[in-house]
Amino acid sequence: MNLQYNYSKLKIGILGGGQLGKMFMQAAMDLDLNLYILDPDISAPCAKHSTQFICGNFNDFDTVFEFGKNMDIITVEIEHVNIEALEKLENSGVKVYPQPSVLRIVQDKGLQKDFYSKNNIPTSPYFLVSNSSEIKNHISEFPVMQKMRKGGYDGKGVKPLYSEKDIENAFEVPSVLEKFVDFEKEIAIIVARNKRGEIAFYPPVEMEFNSEANLVELLISPANISIELKEKTKSIAELIIKSLNMIGILAVEMFVTREGELLVNEIAPRPHNSGHQTIEGNKTSQYSQHVRAIINMPLGNTNIIYPSVMINLLGEKGFQGDVKYMGLESVMAMEGVYPHIYGKKTTKSFRKMGHITITANNIEEAKEKANIVKKTIKVISE
Amino acid sequence: MNLQYNYSKLKIGILGGGQLGKMFMQAAMDLDLNLYILDPDISAPCAKHSTQFICGNFNDFDTVFEFGKNMDIITVEIEHVNIEALEKLENSGVKVYPQPSVLRIVQDKGLQKDFYSKNNIPTSPYFLVSNSSEIKNHISEFPVMQKMRKGGYDGKGVKPLYSEKDIENAFEVPSVLEKFVDFEKEIAIIVARNKRGEIAFYPPVEMEFNSEANLVELLISPANISIELKEKTKSIAELIIKSLNMIGILAVEMFVTREGELLVNEIAPRPHNSGHQTIEGNKTSQYSQHVRAIINMPLGNTNIIYPSVMINLLGEKGFQGDVKYMGLESVMAMEGVYPHIYGKKTTKSFRKMGHITITANNIEEAKEKANIVKKTIKVISE
Repeated sequence: MNLQYNYSKLKIGILGGGQLGKMFMQAAMDLDLNLYILDPDISAPCAKHSTQFICGNFNDFDTVFEFGKNMDIITVEIEHVNIEALEKLENSGVKVYPQPSVLRIVQDKGLQKDFYSKNNIPTSPYFLVSNSSEIKNHISEFPVMQKMRKGGYDGKGVKPLYSEKDIENAFEVPSVLEKFVDFEKEIAIIVARNKRGEIAFYPPVEMEFNSEANLVELLISPANISIELKEKTKSIAELIIKSLNMIGILAVEMFVTREGELLVNEIAPRPHNSGHQTIEGNKTSQYSQHVRAIINMPLGNTNIIYPSVMINLLGEKGFQGDVKYMGLESVMAMEGVYPHIYGKKTTKSFRKMGHITITANNIEEAKEKANIVKKTIKVISE
Repeated sequence: MNLQYNYSKLKIGILGGGQLGKMFMQAAMDLDLNLYILDPDISAPCAKHSTQFICGNFNDFDTVFEFGKNMDIITVEIEHVNIEALEKLENSGVKVYPQPSVLRIVQDKGLQKDFYSKNNIPTSPYFLVSNSSEIKNHISEFPVMQKMRKGGYDGKGVKPLYSEKDIENAFEVPSVLEKFVDFEKEIAIIVARNKRGEIAFYPPVEMEFNSEANLVELLISPANISIELKEKTKSIAELIIKSLNMIGILAVEMFVTREGELLVNEIAPRPHNSGHQTIEGNKTSQYSQHVRAIINMPLGNTNIIYPSVMINLLGEKGFQGDVKYMGLESVMAMEGVYPHIYGKKTTKSFRKMGHITITANNIEEAKEKANIVKKTIKVISE
C-alpha cells in the first residue's frame, strides 16, 4: 500500500453485523472505507449503515466465499464463521484479518488451550474430553469448569462441575475441563498488530461480572494492578499475537490469581467488549485501531484520556419483545456519560443491547457515576 | 418525549448528504436513530451509510415535501433548501430544526443583516443594493465587501470593492455592501438550544484563513482571547439563538476589531466547519450536540479535553478528477492526529475533501504538529 493509496476504493467485508461491526463502521467512516456486511439477520445493527448489506449465513461456505471474493480485505466481528471459505479466499489473494489460522484456534477452546501450552503461555490446568463419560476420569481434579469446545459465547456453553452428581447435567459434547482458578480479579488487555509488524498495547482494564448472567457488568479502565503486573500482561499479549502471527486487534482476558500470577482465560481476535470504553476514554479507539491494523496503517496512540468505567446495557430479566430504554434521558443529563445503543430490535433477559461509558477525573468518581447510571437506566420491552 | 421513548423508531430526515451530514450520522448512530438523506448527488458522502438515501433536489418543493412528510424530525446540513416545503411540513406537524423561519433569515444575507440591526446584535455597517447601478450611491463608503444576498457559500459570492472601477466587475444581483472591518482576528462560537430551552456554549475558537481560497485554513481551539471577550461572545450568541427562537446548533462567526469590539459576521444554523475539532477535542462533539438538541435530550458538556488545531483538507490547486490522498499514512503515524476523509469521489482546486484534527497538551505543540501535517498531506487527482 503506497503513500498515494486511495482508501476510498478499498472494499472491506465484515462477517457479522452486530454492535461490534457497527462501531467498527463508525470508525471506518472517518477514512471513507467501503463496508460490506454479511449477517443472517436483516435487522442487524449494521444493516442500515453499510455500503451494502448482504443477508446470509456466515457459517455457510458458498455464502462466505461469494461474499468475500470481490473484497480487498475481510474481517470479522464474531469468531463463529466458516473458516474453509476464508482459507479459500486467503489463497485466492483476499486479505483475511484475523487470518483463518487464528480463527481456527479461537473457535475451538480445546485448540486454544493446546496453543497456550505449546507456546509457554500461562493458563489454568485443563483436560480435553469428548463426552460426559470421559469426564468421570477427571473427578479427582474437581471442581472444574466445563467449557464446550465450540459454539459457546457470552457466558453460554460454560458449566461448573463440583461433584460427581453434576456430571449427569454436563454438556454431552467435546469440552475442555478447566481447574477452578482462585482468582483475585479478572483483567483484559487489547493488543494490535499490523502487517509491517508494529505492535500497540492498550492499558489493561479490570472487569466485574454479573454472576447470574456470567457477563461483564462493570469494566474499569485502567486496571488497578501494579506496574510489574501491567508489564507482564503486555509480555503475554505480545507473545500470543506474535505466536499467532496475527494481524488485527486481539483481546486477551486473564485471571490474576491470589498469588499474583497471571493465567490466560480466553482470547478474541477482534474488537471486544473489554475495549468499548476506548471510544471516549483513549486517544485511539479499539475500532479505529482495528481499521488501522487491517489496512496496514501506522497504529494509533493508546494512552488513556480519562479514567473510565463501562457498563453493558443488558436486557432486564423477564422482559422480552420490542425494546425500549427507560431513563436514557436522565443519564444523558450527566456529564461524561456516553450511551451507545446498538439498535437491536428486540430485547430478552441479559441480551447485550448497548453500553455506556462513563469518564471522570478519577476512577472513584467514575464508579460513583456508573452506579447512578446503572440504577437509572433499564432496558425493557414495550 | 417521555422517559421511555424508543428512539430507534424516530425517523430523522436530513436535507443534504455531504460531510456535515456524514459526521452527524456517525454521532446519531450512537443512539440508533434512523437517518434518511436527501441529496441530488448519488455519490454524496452520506449515500452509503444512511438508512435510506433519496437522490433528489432539496431545492424543489415537491421533492422536499414528499421526502419530509413521513419523518418525525427534519434537519439540514446546508441552508440552501426549499423553505416553503419546510413550512408546509412544519404546519403539518413535522418537527423542523432549525425552523424554516430561521433558514429564511440565514439564506438571505440582507435579511441576516436586518435581523442583527433589529435585535441590537453588533455587526459592521451595511447597505442593501438591488444591482450594480445602486452600488454607485455608496462610493463614499468604499472600500466595501459585496456579498450576494443569496446563493453564496464557502467563500463564493463575495467580492471586495475598493474603488469605482471595481463596480463594473461587481455581482449584478441583490447584494449586501459591508464596510471593511479592520479586524485583529476572526473567531467563532457554537451554541446549542433544545426545545425545553436549555442552552450550551462551546468555548470560542479562532480561525486563520487561506486568503486565496477565502476558506478557513487553520482553526484553533480555544481562541486566544480574554475571559471578558469570551463572555461577550457567549452573550451575543445567546442573544442570537434566543431572538431566533431556534432549536438545534448555531455557529456564530465574529470579528474581533483592533479596538477589541465584537462584530457578528455570519451565522450558520447547523454543524459547522468551525466545530469539527469538537469530535476529538471536546467532551461532546457538535454533531452529538445537534442530535441531542433536535430530539430534545439534555445538552452535553462542551468542555475542552485537549487544545486542538483543525485543518481543512482542501483539493490541491490545479488538480481535478478522482481524488487520492498523498501522505495520509505519514500523518497517521503522528500522535493525536485524527483524519476525517469525507468520501467525495472527485477533487478540484480548494474543494473541502476532509479535515484533520490535531490534539496536544498545548496550542503551540498542536500548531507545530499541524504545520508538519499540512506540509505532509496533499489532496490530488489520480
